[in-house]
Amino acid sequence: MTVLYKADPVRGAQWSALFAQRAPDVPFRVWPDIGDPALIRYLVAWHPGDLVQTLPNLEAVFSVGAGVDQLDLASVPAHLPVVRMIEPGIVEGMLEYVSEAVLAIHRDLFDYALAQQARAWKPLPLTPASARRVGVLGLGMLGVAVLERLRIFGFDCAGWSRSAHTLEGVRCYAGADEFETFLARTDVLICLLPLTDATRGLLARRVFDALPTGASLVHVGRGPQLVADDLLDALARGQLRSAVLDVTDPEPLPPDHPLWTQPRVRITPHIASATRPDTAVDSLLDNLRRHCAGEPMIGLIDRQLGY
Amino acid sequence: MTVLYKADPVRGAQWSALFAQRAPDVPFRVWPDIGDPALIRYLVAWHPGDLVQTLPNLEAVFSVGAGVDQLDLASVPAHLPVVRMIEPGIVEGMLEYVSEAVLAIHRDLFDYALAQQARAWKPLPLTPASARRVGVLGLGMLGVAVLERLRIFGFDCAGWSRSAHTLEGVRCYAGADEFETFLARTDVLICLLPLTDATRGLLARRVFDALPTGASLVHVGRGPQLVADDLLDALARGQLRSAVLDVTDPEPLPPDHPLWTQPRVRITPHIASATRPDTAVDSLLDNLRRHCAGEPMIGLIDRQLGY
Repeated sequence: MTVLYKADPVRGAQWSALFAQRAPDVPFRVWPDIGDPALIRYLVAWHPGDLVQTLPNLEAVFSVGAGVDQLDLASVPAHLPVVRMIEPGIVEGMLEYVSEAVLAIHRDLFDYALAQQARAWKPLPLTPASARRVGVLGLGMLGVAVLERLRIFGFDCAGWSRSAHTLEGVRCYAGADEFETFLARTDVLICLLPLTDATRGLLARRVFDALPTGASLVHVGRGPQLVADDLLDALARGQLRSAVLDVTDPEPLPPDHPLWTQPRVRITPHIASATRPDTAVDSLLDNLRRHCAGEPMIGLIDRQLGY
Repeated sequence: MTVLYKADPVRGAQWSALFAQRAPDVPFRVWPDIGDPALIRYLVAWHPGDLVQTLPNLEAVFSVGAGVDQLDLASVPAHLPVVRMIEPGIVEGMLEYVSEAVLAIHRDLFDYALAQQARAWKPLPLTPASARRVGVLGLGMLGVAVLERLRIFGFDCAGWSRSAHTLEGVRCYAGADEFETFLARTDVLICLLPLTDATRGLLARRVFDALPTGASLVHVGRGPQLVADDLLDALARGQLRSAVLDVTDPEPLPPDHPLWTQPRVRITPHIASATRPDTAVDSLLDNLRRHCAGEPMIGLIDRQLGY
């Protein structure tokens, strides 16, 4: 039951070494050195391309990342399970990134950075965390973990999801009917939605205008969910106060893109969280064991919903 | 038993309203409207100046802030207890500020800000929190609370204090003998020491050079503890990688000070944490009750040590 890896080759070498240590009986190959295609049973990939069609005995496709939007699901035969990566390294990075971003917004650090440029010592009034309403779009594994961490700081926490959820200490909103109500009470909006046809272009004027004036955005979902022109316009009008963007469309963001130079926009190059080979290999091995035992795999996606 | 307040007058009005609500039987006055000096039993102040000498029946002096270094202890008669402010609002602000600063350093946000200025999309390798050694100077109420919060993120945590401490999950170092050992293992140094003769000018070349090359500083103690020229030199040599300064010397920092324009220095105007009237009034009332009952007051300082 050979595993084939097709993604970043430096990480591929790390995965290979970890497999050799932890599962020496499982043959592990790094693309393009695939050997006999008929022996490949599992593909771990970021962009598999046409590779899926050339592997006659494939039993499952695993994304190396938390999302599967980059996979082109239509090109994967319907009988093959597609599994996203759920592992503790991804969660830890996201908790760090979002906590920092929300605290930076909460403590007016965009304003203080501008004051520093002007060499001006200007203390601003302090708002307690309990008066800062944060809201997370998407209540999957990452969204729930982020809300649990933000609660520790005392923020007024809410979450929105397509389907109903119950989370301790978090006001949960569900479905299209409650979307506007959720937005109207959200000072710091955090997007952790998967990219689907329903979320493409979602972060646009309609959403920004439904937030309280002066709200901020932390975007750690996927680049194509954001309409950049609408964000720039909302910032220019003062409807939004600041934005932290870890994802853009396209990536890398071209040097002449106007988002780079906005003083109230922070851009990082899709680094909020990354799969860590050290912990991801264990998650994959656990899923291979589950698959062989006929148990449900962790992170199995619904091909209809696309996540 | 009249209480006299002498600090920021806007906050004085808030204190006055809160006293009227929560302790209507305790006369509360805001300087300069002191009434009969002989009636004043308690002084709550930031800079009391010569006021202490003009109040013949004073029983205790309370700082409105977490420190007492601004009080000029020598001018307060030796028989008077001096009490610093210990209240939950101060702790909450400090946890927010230090968490944000450590996460920003940990996640290379100084580098990403410079990359954004250059419109460059340059992902950097990710270091797990468990491999990031944070170290807190000062294990008082704030230092201990900060370490507890940083532990949640999985950082490798240590603390140093004049006297020995034991904290779960934190390597504790004590006294001059263990100072260098503590510094040698600290990637992110957080200063939460009180200002005393022993800590004035402490954050200087000797300390910076004892840290690992590329370490960072988060300074939330008091401005005169830092030798700014030594910090600038350590940054220029690459011995230090970045610094987050909430306190400076003097405050406000003058517009022509070279710290303002360092790309790897972030300056905020002493806003990390502030006494919140809403919670501080309860702490003061509890201390007044303790004083009247002959119980030890919370935050009573040792006049010899100066904190």
